[in-house]
Amino acid sequence: MTGDHALEELVRAVAPLADDVVAREAQAALDAKTKPRGSLGTLEQLAVRIAVVSGDAQPRPLDPAVVVAAGDHGVAAEGVSAYPREVTGQMLANFRAGGAAVAVLCRQAGARLVVVDAGVLEPPRVPGILDLSLGRGTANAAVGPAMSRAIAVDGVVRGAELGRRLVEEGAGVVALGEMGIGNTTAAAALTAALLGCDPAAACGRGTGLDEAGVARKVEIVHRMLAVNHTAPDDPVGALAAVGGFEVAVLTGVALGAAAGRAVVLLDGFISTVAALVGACVAPPLVGYLVAAHRSPEPGHRLVLDALGLEPLLDLRLRLGEGSGAALALPLLAAARAILVEMSTFADAGVSDTGR
Amino acid sequence: MTGDHALEELVRAVAPLADDVVAREAQAALDAKTKPRGSLGTLEQLAVRIAVVSGDAQPRPLDPAVVVAAGDHGVAAEGVSAYPREVTGQMLANFRAGGAAVAVLCRQAGARLVVVDAGVLEPPRVPGILDLSLGRGTANAAVGPAMSRAIAVDGVVRGAELGRRLVEEGAGVVALGEMGIGNTTAAAALTAALLGCDPAAACGRGTGLDEAGVARKVEIVHRMLAVNHTAPDDPVGALAAVGGFEVAVLTGVALGAAAGRAVVLLDGFISTVAALVGACVAPPLVGYLVAAHRSPEPGHRLVLDALGLEPLLDLRLRLGEGSGAALALPLLAAARAILVEMSTFADAGVSDTGR
Repeated sequence: MTGDHALEELVRAVAPLADDVVAREAQAALDAKTKPRGSLGTLEQLAVRIAVVSGDAQPRPLDPAVVVAAGDHGVAAEGVSAYPREVTGQMLANFRAGGAAVAVLCRQAGARLVVVDAGVLEPPRVPGILDLSLGRGTANAAVGPAMSRAIAVDGVVRGAELGRRLVEEGAGVVALGEMGIGNTTAAAALTAALLGCDPAAACGRGTGLDEAGVARKVEIVHRMLAVNHTAPDDPVGALAAVGGFEVAVLTGVALGAAAGRAVVLLDGFISTVAALVGACVAPPLVGYLVAAHRSPEPGHRLVLDALGLEPLLDLRLRLGEGSGAALALPLLAAARAILVEMSTFADAGVSDTGR
Repeated sequence: MTGDHALEELVRAVAPLADDVVAREAQAALDAKTKPRGSLGTLEQLAVRIAVVSGDAQPRPLDPAVVVAAGDHGVAAEGVSAYPREVTGQMLANFRAGGAAVAVLCRQAGARLVVVDAGVLEPPRVPGILDLSLGRGTANAAVGPAMSRAIAVDGVVRGAELGRRLVEEGAGVVALGEMGIGNTTAAAALTAALLGCDPAAACGRGTGLDEAGVARKVEIVHRMLAVNHTAPDDPVGALAAVGGFEVAVLTGVALGAAAGRAVVLLDGFISTVAALVGACVAPPLVGYLVAAHRSPEPGHRLVLDALGLEPLLDLRLRLGEGSGAALALPLLAAARAILVEMSTFADAGVSDTGR
């Protein structure tokens, strides 16, 4: 099966969610619980979303998996990050060793952490890292395409296989995390390419740029879009031209998890851009998405708005790694528990005369 | 020991937090972790707060306790709630049976739930409810004081004993929850009395009023403040005049928990007003407070602003019970875990060249 054919199959596998019956059933269940109707606000909408995605108004425990995909970026040579590229591979080892923020937060949330080498420059010699590497870092997208179209498709397909497998192994929610020095620049370029917005509107401080650094980043994104042909109606082409290996893999993880009917939990700017690429390829994906948090990256807001998502948290997180997604996992577990475990007015013998 | 004397002792027991050494030590520990400095945003501030309150830059696990205090309100006779008063006692039983939202959310968060009868009209015949009852509901504050000053002081002292005991039994965070048909009216009156604001600015929909209901509530709060003498410099007097039994007990729980050096986690409008009363009595209390969420009650924002608190969550919750506090507990556990469990750049062999 060629890559493009596999991609077409994958797109068809993401079922449109028009499951009004389950939504109504879940909302009716929530309305019968011992609380004023709607009084748990966003948590109730989240519970309905989990029910609809799983196709079950009494969804089973979510058994979350967090995928952290790492990749290096040729464009980092342009000085768009406060950190050197070697950090990407070093952090991959740190994820696996359990000392990184996302590893700590996954333990807290009882989530499985899956660490993926999507294409780092210097793969650490550490067991337990899933090798889906598409190469030793992308090419510098400020001088030519970051990768070929075939490699981008291959990354999406590999990611989708992982996403599906995690659902088969029990995950009801798959969260997307990433690591890659330079990847907010790639994400900003993809945002500008797919949403047709000004690069300046999509560029922020990343993990630590000053004002001059941000100005330089805007200039580099302009150059990336000038030397590469991108078009909003060719998301895979844009992914190949200005994206990243970890973005390609996460786009696939999102599509594969949705194909398996799991909730796809987004972290910050980069993972949300990966979902945007996925939603451009397979529009029904949007119904499976939950945004964990709003990052201070200005591009994040643009992409969330384009996807119609309202984040659960706003804690000024700008780390990435899936840290915000891991922090939001207890809210998803709580939403499901409200739907499944709360008493009804009838069960509890409480007078339901509220309006 | 008379009540007033006990209250004075309690006020002295809330130590001012000027522990710059612990704050600096905790911030230095966070800055050495494998992440760009400050990149975990609010979570880092929360970690420092937990360290400072506990007096330990490597704080032990938080072993949270959630106190839900219930009380009935004479003013409910004025038709200020969408629910009948009997619901307060019924819900007390439902908290204990485990089917109420806060019970479900405490199980999710691994928190101990302490259910307190602070003075309901019809105490349920259910074992395991802590009896701190100050009476069978307050008097109607729209025609005279809700309770005597001596009873208000007694409620605060009983609550403080509970707060201290929970800390002695291991709680590093004590969350405040409440139940009481009519208690947003009492909270609005206390807000207007203590902050000197217009009652209309402090009154909202509660758990389900329509516009006409809110207008009536504003009128009742005006009447409560007209028939009772209250003054901002006499918080206990205001508590007695227009407050509630559960508010008095929660004010005490907050003061007692702080005296034991636990974090006091606030839920919505009523519990935040209880903390405001406590902070008026003992200003150092403010340093121990963390606001879990922002409720849609307009008075909540006024009181949070007066206390200088920025809530962690904004999920349009308007249930009370401590549900928002229970939902925020995993964020506190995560903040502590980041501080204690994350690797440093040196441990993990990651290059720390970020600015």
